[in-house]
Amino acid sequence: MDDKLMLMIPGPTPVPERVLSALAKHPIGHRSGDFSKIMAQVIADLKWLHQTQNDVLILTASGTGAMEAGIINFLSSGDRVLVGCNGKFGERWADLCDTFGLRTERITASWGQPLDPDAFRRALEADTQKQIKAVVITHSETSTGVLNDLETINRYVKDHGEALIIVDAVTSLGATNVPVDEWGLDVVGSGSQKGFMIPPGLGFVCVSAKAWKAYETAKLPRFYLDLGKYRKDAAKNTTPFTPPVNLIFALQAALEMMKAEGLDQIFGRHLRLRNAARAAIEALGVPLLVRDAAAASPAITAVEPGHVDSEKVRSVLRQKYDIAMAGGQDHFKGKIFRIGHLGFVSDRDILSAIAALESVLQDLEYPNLPVGAGVTAAAKVIMQW
Amino acid sequence: MDDKLMLMIPGPTPVPERVLSALAKHPIGHRSGDFSKIMAQVIADLKWLHQTQNDVLILTASGTGAMEAGIINFLSSGDRVLVGCNGKFGERWADLCDTFGLRTERITASWGQPLDPDAFRRALEADTQKQIKAVVITHSETSTGVLNDLETINRYVKDHGEALIIVDAVTSLGATNVPVDEWGLDVVGSGSQKGFMIPPGLGFVCVSAKAWKAYETAKLPRFYLDLGKYRKDAAKNTTPFTPPVNLIFALQAALEMMKAEGLDQIFGRHLRLRNAARAAIEALGVPLLVRDAAAASPAITAVEPGHVDSEKVRSVLRQKYDIAMAGGQDHFKGKIFRIGHLGFVSDRDILSAIAALESVLQDLEYPNLPVGAGVTAAAKVIMQW
Repeated sequence: MDDKLMLMIPGPTPVPERVLSALAKHPIGHRSGDFSKIMAQVIADLKWLHQTQNDVLILTASGTGAMEAGIINFLSSGDRVLVGCNGKFGERWADLCDTFGLRTERITASWGQPLDPDAFRRALEADTQKQIKAVVITHSETSTGVLNDLETINRYVKDHGEALIIVDAVTSLGATNVPVDEWGLDVVGSGSQKGFMIPPGLGFVCVSAKAWKAYETAKLPRFYLDLGKYRKDAAKNTTPFTPPVNLIFALQAALEMMKAEGLDQIFGRHLRLRNAARAAIEALGVPLLVRDAAAASPAITAVEPGHVDSEKVRSVLRQKYDIAMAGGQDHFKGKIFRIGHLGFVSDRDILSAIAALESVLQDLEYPNLPVGAGVTAAAKVIMQW
Repeated sequence: MDDKLMLMIPGPTPVPERVLSALAKHPIGHRSGDFSKIMAQVIADLKWLHQTQNDVLILTASGTGAMEAGIINFLSSGDRVLVGCNGKFGERWADLCDTFGLRTERITASWGQPLDPDAFRRALEADTQKQIKAVVITHSETSTGVLNDLETINRYVKDHGEALIIVDAVTSLGATNVPVDEWGLDVVGSGSQKGFMIPPGLGFVCVSAKAWKAYETAKLPRFYLDLGKYRKDAAKNTTPFTPPVNLIFALQAALEMMKAEGLDQIFGRHLRLRNAARAAIEALGVPLLVRDAAAASPAITAVEPGHVDSEKVRSVLRQKYDIAMAGGQDHFKGKIFRIGHLGFVSDRDILSAIAALESVLQDLEYPNLPVGAGVTAAAKVIMQW
């Protein structure tokens, strides 16, 4: 049916009506007092979401733009950096570091496996010269649905003392606990079309005092992504370059909704959705890509259907039920599909998605499918929560 | 009155209801076939607007991000560049070039005066070694309302043969003729919240074959703003990084409206609005910042009220009539105000703005004000068009 699309992809995620209405307001001048009032509220609410007193800066950029800003502002050509690579996004940040002339060392795991914190510990402990200037970690690896053990890796970074921890929290912020101040995270990048429940177009970078100290001596050239400019203007509730005014209206509305729901409730809901999705897929006898629940992202569940082409599953789901799920990326294309349960997603949505998925797998003659078991298992998780 | 704001600033500009409705649609997946169809149409329509067969690339960025991309993708550290500086934006591009280690030579004129094409001719003719790699020109200088003589300067760049012409067309594209192919403009940057009639958040960069050749050997590091990535994906009607899906919906709607109006009609309307604004201000005996009509931007008219504080004019206009005009920037703050007549602005709007402005100047006891003469003069321009 036309206009009946249901997004179950890890971004853009569904947007509440209240947020769409805010988005559709007539723009106002970005140098006006009225806009500064909105900025003041939005900045305060972003700090609440990040559980921090650090600066949270707003960029007109995708998540990649935010992560580039989070890297280039604090480093100089030739700096040694460790980058965790166990999926498309970790690999992207390593490529980005290469592009800017950093001495990039990839600490890898297979796609679908979590990064091994011990590998970071060993590299950091061996660095007695304190040459490692940053460790870049993708918290929730969107391409596979792995949640890396940021807390433990960060502890080893803290033991090292010199290196900054730079976090891609694009699909973890607003879905799972990212306590910036409690953990002492130096740089945290994210994007609007994820846990924030608004359309894409805004990037966010949260910056610690330690990172600002590194900024002072960092030499990579920066202008549009120069976070110092954003910091200076954020103090006056404005931005150095024209902000996407309507997306800021939407952000304001979405953050109000998030505050009304509460952080613990938001994290609990995402965990419940993840558990329901995983229980359903397991009950159907279809393999999950991430076997270990402890390493499974609360934002995305990747499924490896094996017996049937994952792209076929997606296209039938789209055609018959107007549900969009994500495919695999790069060498995972055709091998996995990904259920996004991130942002404005409810228990009802996950039941709908699982019910439709069961029907599609049956259509595609998935062998020995216990029809009904998926919905039953998901509902059980929800009921017993 | 609440929600009664009328934008007469040079961005964000007013947005048509049709475009706001498109903006407020539920997002769809940016890797879907449906989105690629929209991208295909939008890319074709952008080429129409740019009067070009060159690539037109869409970035999630402000106009400054688009201009940074338009500069760093085609140059290497140490390259010699000429930058026209007669306002805040020209100066910004010169600072940007400095930041990236280019050998920047500023060709200046006072704020409010047009750049002298002969100064460019002399510098280019003297460069027999062909060391000048680019000439950066702000076509319509938003900070002052000067329209620089791009056509003539570009002719001298063509005579030089080697240098690229890089144009800030942020407030000229969609307001006045920028015939990219006819003039052979190499790089043209612009932003969505101007002639495009949509909210801020999108940047556009139009790139010629000659510029792509320079891209191949240009060495400044680039990742998020790497236009080669955008070019490769635009050929498949997609983007390398998540695009602001809802702003693309809005762009599609706005470009359809622009095509329905027609380029000549759009340019004619902006010229008429400019002439009406200038005739009104002159009839009121208030000084225009840009004295020479030939150097006056069809997008912005700056007024230098002299006898009264320009910030006072703006605040009374805002309070009494809910009209937002722009102030002066940097050393022009308090000295000028700027009437934006760019994008979705009609004859009726300029009459309203002039009528309100007359009333405010009277309120502020502007000396010897011929009340009524402004509206009469503006209406005469419109009637006789």
